[in-house]
Amino acid sequence: MQLQGSKRFMLFTGSANPALAEEVADLLGVELGKADRETFPNGEIYVRYSESVRGADAFVMQSHCPPLNHHIMEQLVMIDALERASAKRITAVIPFLAYARQDRKSRPREPITARLVSDLFVTAGADRLVSMDLHSQQIQGFVSKPYDHLTALPVFNDYLREHVEDPTVIVSPDTGRVKEASKHARAIDAGVAFIHKRRSVTQHGVVAALQVVGDVEGKHAVIVDDIIDTAGTVVAAAELLKERGALSVRAMATHGVLSSPAAERLLAAPIEEIVITNTLPVPKEAQALANLKVLSIASILADALKAIFTDDSVSELFMGENA
Amino acid sequence: MQLQGSKRFMLFTGSANPALAEEVADLLGVELGKADRETFPNGEIYVRYSESVRGADAFVMQSHCPPLNHHIMEQLVMIDALERASAKRITAVIPFLAYARQDRKSRPREPITARLVSDLFVTAGADRLVSMDLHSQQIQGFVSKPYDHLTALPVFNDYLREHVEDPTVIVSPDTGRVKEASKHARAIDAGVAFIHKRRSVTQHGVVAALQVVGDVEGKHAVIVDDIIDTAGTVVAAAELLKERGALSVRAMATHGVLSSPAAERLLAAPIEEIVITNTLPVPKEAQALANLKVLSIASILADALKAIFTDDSVSELFMGENA
Amino acid sequence: MQLQGSKRFMLFTGSANPALAEEVADLLGVELGKADRETFPNGEIYVRYSESVRGADAFVMQSHCPPLNHHIMEQLVMIDALERASAKRITAVIPFLAYARQDRKSRPREPITARLVSDLFVTAGADRLVSMDLHSQQIQGFVSKPYDHLTALPVFNDYLREHVEDPTVIVSPDTGRVKEASKHARAIDAGVAFIHKRRSVTQHGVVAALQVVGDVEGKHAVIVDDIIDTAGTVVAAAELLKERGALSVRAMATHGVLSSPAAERLLAAPIEEIVITNTLPVPKEAQALANLKVLSIASILADALKAIFTDDSVSELFMGENA
Amino acid sequence: MQLQGSKRFMLFTGSANPALAEEVADLLGVELGKADRETFPNGEIYVRYSESVRGADAFVMQSHCPPLNHHIMEQLVMIDALERASAKRITAVIPFLAYARQDRKSRPREPITARLVSDLFVTAGADRLVSMDLHSQQIQGFVSKPYDHLTALPVFNDYLREHVEDPTVIVSPDTGRVKEASKHARAIDAGVAFIHKRRSVTQHGVVAALQVVGDVEGKHAVIVDDIIDTAGTVVAAAELLKERGALSVRAMATHGVLSSPAAERLLAAPIEEIVITNTLPVPKEAQALANLKVLSIASILADALKAIFTDDSVSELFMGENA
Amino acid sequence: MQLQGSKRFMLFTGSANPALAEEVADLLGVELGKADRETFPNGEIYVRYSESVRGADAFVMQSHCPPLNHHIMEQLVMIDALERASAKRITAVIPFLAYARQDRKSRPREPITARLVSDLFVTAGADRLVSMDLHSQQIQGFVSKPYDHLTALPVFNDYLREHVEDPTVIVSPDTGRVKEASKHARAIDAGVAFIHKRRSVTQHGVVAALQVVGDVEGKHAVIVDDIIDTAGTVVAAAELLKERGALSVRAMATHGVLSSPAAERLLAAPIEEIVITNTLPVPKEAQALANLKVLSIASILADALKAIFTDDSVSELFMGENA
Amino acid sequence: MQLQGSKRFMLFTGSANPALAEEVADLLGVELGKADRETFPNGEIYVRYSESVRGADAFVMQSHCPPLNHHIMEQLVMIDALERASAKRITAVIPFLAYARQDRKSRPREPITARLVSDLFVTAGADRLVSMDLHSQQIQGFVSKPYDHLTALPVFNDYLREHVEDPTVIVSPDTGRVKEASKHARAIDAGVAFIHKRRSVTQHGVVAALQVVGDVEGKHAVIVDDIIDTAGTVVAAAELLKERGALSVRAMATHGVLSSPAAERLLAAPIEEIVITNTLPVPKEAQALANLKVLSIASILADALKAIFTDDSVSELFMGENA
Repeated sequence: MQLQGSKRFMLFTGSANPALAEEVADLLGVELGKADRETFPNGEIYVRYSESVRGADAFVMQSHCPPLNHHIMEQLVMIDALERASAKRITAVIPFLAYARQDRKSRPREPITARLVSDLFVTAGADRLVSMDLHSQQIQGFVSKPYDHLTALPVFNDYLREHVEDPTVIVSPDTGRVKEASKHARAIDAGVAFIHKRRSVTQHGVVAALQVVGDVEGKHAVIVDDIIDTAGTVVAAAELLKERGALSVRAMATHGVLSSPAAERLLAAPIEEIVITNTLPVPKEAQALANLKVLSIASILADALKAIFTDDSVSELFMGENA
Repeated sequence: MQLQGSKRFMLFTGSANPALAEEVADLLGVELGKADRETFPNGEIYVRYSESVRGADAFVMQSHCPPLNHHIMEQLVMIDALERASAKRITAVIPFLAYARQDRKSRPREPITARLVSDLFVTAGADRLVSMDLHSQQIQGFVSKPYDHLTALPVFNDYLREHVEDPTVIVSPDTGRVKEASKHARAIDAGVAFIHKRRSVTQHGVVAALQVVGDVEGKHAVIVDDIIDTAGTVVAAAELLKERGALSVRAMATHGVLSSPAAERLLAAPIEEIVITNTLPVPKEAQALANLKVLSIASILADALKAIFTDDSVSELFMGENA
Repeated sequence: MQLQGSKRFMLFTGSANPALAEEVADLLGVELGKADRETFPNGEIYVRYSESVRGADAFVMQSHCPPLNHHIMEQLVMIDALERASAKRITAVIPFLAYARQDRKSRPREPITARLVSDLFVTAGADRLVSMDLHSQQIQGFVSKPYDHLTALPVFNDYLREHVEDPTVIVSPDTGRVKEASKHARAIDAGVAFIHKRRSVTQHGVVAALQVVGDVEGKHAVIVDDIIDTAGTVVAAAELLKERGALSVRAMATHGVLSSPAAERLLAAPIEEIVITNTLPVPKEAQALANLKVLSIASILADALKAIFTDDSVSELFMGENA
Repeated sequence: MQLQGSKRFMLFTGSANPALAEEVADLLGVELGKADRETFPNGEIYVRYSESVRGADAFVMQSHCPPLNHHIMEQLVMIDALERASAKRITAVIPFLAYARQDRKSRPREPITARLVSDLFVTAGADRLVSMDLHSQQIQGFVSKPYDHLTALPVFNDYLREHVEDPTVIVSPDTGRVKEASKHARAIDAGVAFIHKRRSVTQHGVVAALQVVGDVEGKHAVIVDDIIDTAGTVVAAAELLKERGALSVRAMATHGVLSSPAAERLLAAPIEEIVITNTLPVPKEAQALANLKVLSIASILADALKAIFTDDSVSELFMGENA
Repeated sequence: MQLQGSKRFMLFTGSANPALAEEVADLLGVELGKADRETFPNGEIYVRYSESVRGADAFVMQSHCPPLNHHIMEQLVMIDALERASAKRITAVIPFLAYARQDRKSRPREPITARLVSDLFVTAGADRLVSMDLHSQQIQGFVSKPYDHLTALPVFNDYLREHVEDPTVIVSPDTGRVKEASKHARAIDAGVAFIHKRRSVTQHGVVAALQVVGDVEGKHAVIVDDIIDTAGTVVAAAELLKERGALSVRAMATHGVLSSPAAERLLAAPIEEIVITNTLPVPKEAQALANLKVLSIASILADALKAIFTDDSVSELFMGENA
Repeated sequence: MQLQGSKRFMLFTGSANPALAEEVADLLGVELGKADRETFPNGEIYVRYSESVRGADAFVMQSHCPPLNHHIMEQLVMIDALERASAKRITAVIPFLAYARQDRKSRPREPITARLVSDLFVTAGADRLVSMDLHSQQIQGFVSKPYDHLTALPVFNDYLREHVEDPTVIVSPDTGRVKEASKHARAIDAGVAFIHKRRSVTQHGVVAALQVVGDVEGKHAVIVDDIIDTAGTVVAAAELLKERGALSVRAMATHGVLSSPAAERLLAAPIEEIVITNTLPVPKEAQALANLKVLSIASILADALKAIFTDDSVSELFMGENA
């Protein structure tokens, strides 16, 4: 028997963010793959594909929003079932990767959970990974498999060019992301600054005090980060920037985790606009924020998945911004 | 430099069932190891050991009760941190292993999640596993590492001998556990029966009907299972047994998962006594059940861990009942 | 250079049961692949393919009949040679898997040889496995690779419907296979029973005694098992069933291992018919049994291999009976 | 036969930086282990241990200085020979890890050589790694084995406290290491600044221009980096700092790679003092620099190796600075 | 709990050559470990250790004599059971390794069975291997684990010095083992020669003809090989050597496989003495050979196992002859 | 989405021997793949592919000439980048494999570097290897992946038939390669001899003395080896052969490593012609040798790569000489 080789694209979604998967499927002109997903009363996940996946080039999309260990496990289970059902290649698509901030031992006897989670995906049977704006780029090196690392940068830069007036300063809310802030700044020819936690000697001892390094006075400040979680950092930064004379403050991050009490804090903060993307669903409490703007990265994902399937260059799609 | 070799025993517990770990530690005359365990607002787990674990023979105990994917991940993270902090040997102690019922593909395109979960523990760095009354013994073969499989059988048999009058019949609530029922029956010299789902042709089509195979009339029936989860099976069995003339009905299982609506069902059921063990904490709703009896398996675990640490035979401790 | 991808199907057989492989090849309309297989005087196996296998989708069929360690090694060696000769994908087809009954540690310090053997196939280079009616379904979980588990159930049910009169009872010869007996019973709407070894207190002490649980009197009994090996169990069951008033007794099993003294025992037993399949060649002594009926499962294998090759669903071929 | 367990410490050095290994051995009061190391005329490395290493807790120290691929391979070969000669545990001690700057894909179709090199050590047989001031902390996550990551921070802070006058500002020479600069700053209560490459629009088009973010005027500036390689970055930074009014400029880095033309550039630069450590031997050309100060980290390594050998906490030795 | 570390030596034997294991155990002053070894009627092997092996330094000795695939599998099963029963370290002791001659692809589409078999031992759980006079030394490189490769050379050289008169010539029976012959020759200061298969052009075409290269006339010839299997090569060599004027011919080989028709051939051959060792039991037919001399290598094995257990140098025991 | 499968051939070269890669590419009618290869001042290698390699069947050719550890690492880095950039299959083409002579432990506590290097290629991501005239064929068994082992034998035999007059004798320069010499001899119907190092007792003690075994007087001698490195062995052999009456002496080897002082020695040696191939570039000093003849093996490589790409038989191309 001889057979002409052919490839079949199948996109499945976990239960975390089906809206994003639907949007990607629509852009690609395909139907989402069919799978029964159930959670038993004690919390055990059950998954079963309702159509054959033999030989398929299968993509399993899941964003790691709460309950996040549940969602991680669901994605692992979906991958295991694909492997055992003879899918040809399995790509884990993880727009937001949980635990990415635990990417090193900053103190003794800590885990490196970002590596552990990466290993879990490989153990389950993933042949490649796709993520967006990882907390650190080094996470790509946590697997030996191909890892397509996309960025929402083009979407954000388009937005900044349209909505923010000069003079602008891009602000890193802490010392660890000055490099990324600097990239944004160069892209739109803005200034750059960062917030630094300094020991400060007072009458009553040594206390930490925040300090802005760089010029912000009389400028429109845009705080950029990869993640806005409880919003403590970004709100403290915003307040400081206003104190230091910023004309306006915006906050911008790819991943709007927005855990409680983020909504509450952001509501009270001197922030004109919070710009995030739809890598994660917006939590209920945060949906009420009038100044929350959600940009879609579905087309970036759609283009990337198509390029992976057709063996086209992913990087050329985005002129080098997405590797 | 030359050094005399020595071994240090350390027992850590996850957050699922600390009471059991405390009980085991007390029996062994040791303190539980110290670790900071935190859950961040978005659900990410953080663990850090607060004392050195270098060179330790470390045991990490966690029962997989709800939220179970959270508890599995916590145990994986604890193992990863031990590995990176240079523990010499790491044993995952899992009194109740979640997903054990997903131990085979019973339909096409299903995962084998029990194997997946076993692999996750090995990936995280576990050198050996300890569990109790696994849903199927074959799960031991899901890892290549040593896997100590303990049983609560001695505890149950002692209980039966003391509390149940003749004539007794041990009943398997379905066709898959007749072998285990038969073991109990031999141990206390009782009869054996099982419940079988039969097609039954009626006027209106084919419906399933439960049927008791074996003699139960005029006997004290003891339904034995490994797990009581939502209690549907056991309650249906109990009702049928009463209908068929059983003098009394008891239900007995190592693992009292007791997911909702187990408590409600058991309350209404013609069951004299429900006997479980403390591999899992009793869920709040079920704590109200007057006829719920919880036996402790802490001493079995304590003896097993000590034997593992001192390289003594585990099986001899229990006269072959615990392998 | 650019090349249209294409796939080539190649089926090879070991020396254990070439007749079955020939039958499968005929049904598929292909020639068996050519290989020199030799055994050197000291027992070392030598294999060499006499045609190119580069890029082939290769299947190596071997049933594990005696001398079974020789046949296992032959299959491993054939797989190693395919791997080194650049076959693209290698499937080990094992209609009867030896050591499947050693699938758990039933006593301390035992091996789990079914897992070991599974690992050996993966080590040699198998990308997937195909077997039929494994002793326990959990064996699928002993590998992380895809494992197609076929069943002879449809063949047996067809046979029962044609040849067995009502009222019928399906009997499990021990407590471990009641579930499978129950499946058969449901399929042909029959009763179900099993044989139980009970302690029995006599004048002279405690002895084991066999006992039938379930109604067999006045019924046609069909003992079903996965394997008939030395036939001790099945013959003891048959005698007991006749004593308990069964009208007739049949024995049915997928794998007719029929090790000595099976033929002798079966000849003397009150068994009307012994129905097996051709997963294994019938041993010489057993060929003389007049009431031995061998059903062919070649078409099930042929359909499965074709579906694997063409990436069609295996389960749909058999309406869910073969996963 | 029964035997009391005991451990033997053995420290071996590659040919890259034997002086450092000698210093560490002296501090520990041990002799360096004996090994023949040869390079054949075509460049092949040959290693053979001249004393038994069976059962030893072996440490192989090598700094990755030029010819660095030769030195990496030498260390791999030394590890392979230990593994095959039955050393019990093998620790690769790599004061300076080459390729650490290639720790992510910054552009498409790049390797992640830091991960590759980490994998090579594990492949050769290393059971654990020890390094100092890795270019990024995430590199620890490139292996699943324990990775002790030491820092020269305490040595540098002692030095700064003794030699630098107030007011001091710690300067990151680019946007990627602001976090580390900030750590130093907090330790000695200094200010912090960084150098940013900004697009600047001139008459003749867009050119990149360096810019200082943070206050440096009238302060003693200390540029801190992990590596000084060709010194281009640090010299440009120094010049800019002087232009911006810094009172003095110092450069400080753990790893003095000092590749050509570093010596030449540093000679001409407005830098008062260049402070490095002895993780690497100082290249010949650079030895002539009058203002080059080399601090020894031998005692940090010695304490760490001893703690690893005796299963003591490494972190407690250094009050948390060395994990 | 703190525990003084200690090690326990346990030596187990498979069923292939228990006499050798007994001899080794006697020399070491230990009892052989207790294990039930059974073969079921269909050929499946069953093994169970009858005493605890937890924490033991376990050695499993098996020579690969016929039925050799059975004996290989038995050793694998014994190793698997040790692994699962928590032995601390497992050494496979294989005085004669089967398939060692299949150590390369000499023709296309052949397996490399020596590598496959090596992998099987590692898969089963062996932590190290011990063999004697492997067909090629490169086989040590087929595993990444430590592989102690012993040689019977000292035993043979002692024998030669005592029993063979000058002038002696050591003869390699084919072109592949001239190096080994040369080693023997140097050790006892003898000449060296080999047998070469040459094309020879005759009237009737091209035929192969054996040819002696080197001087043998008037000398006592000693043919040395690693294995004497069917004895075809060695007998043809002996005849040729006599034709070429050798005073006497002896044959010497570590491994007396002596498969049929070796005994018959050797009986008829002009060979004064056949000297082998007890790595393998002498097959029944060959026991009748009057001129068969079997030397014991038990003391070499005993010394090596003891050295491995106590972490002493194996090579120093034998002055470098045994590595 | 459905896609017709297709394969794309891409050949890349490292910096060691680009001329050979160009020659192979020309023969195949393809362009070499584009890649930026750089060496940073401290010796770190950087590689980046300048065109998409997604889904490609990629071949990376590198000969291991000095600086050889640099060239090995460059090839590893190139493979890592291909893996991460999603090449479908990666073949490491290594015409000359460095460290091949370190293929066994000839003394205690040595590495087996040929195995280590083989492992490094697999670790980096190579799916298969291609080499030519490996020092020992067993090296193929050092990997579990397919390893195409080519030979220059046909090229040499053609050359010998054309250029060497009768009577010819093929000489192995030491005892380890008599088998290969014998193969050549049979191919051109010549005699065979070898050089043996013998202990010789003189007045002043025991010294080693070279000795020719086999007839060389009055014959044209051709010394054959796999490698000519410093040429010490071959020159000593040549001198001895002349002394023993050889009419002429030629030296022939696949790999002309020709490390210093090879050129000097060969210039002074009584060797008529040195015949090598272009697996390695000829070192500068050796290019001046008038009697150095370099044969091209590019067509063998080209045919092999094409056959691998198109899944044709490699062995049939060369009538079994190249496996």
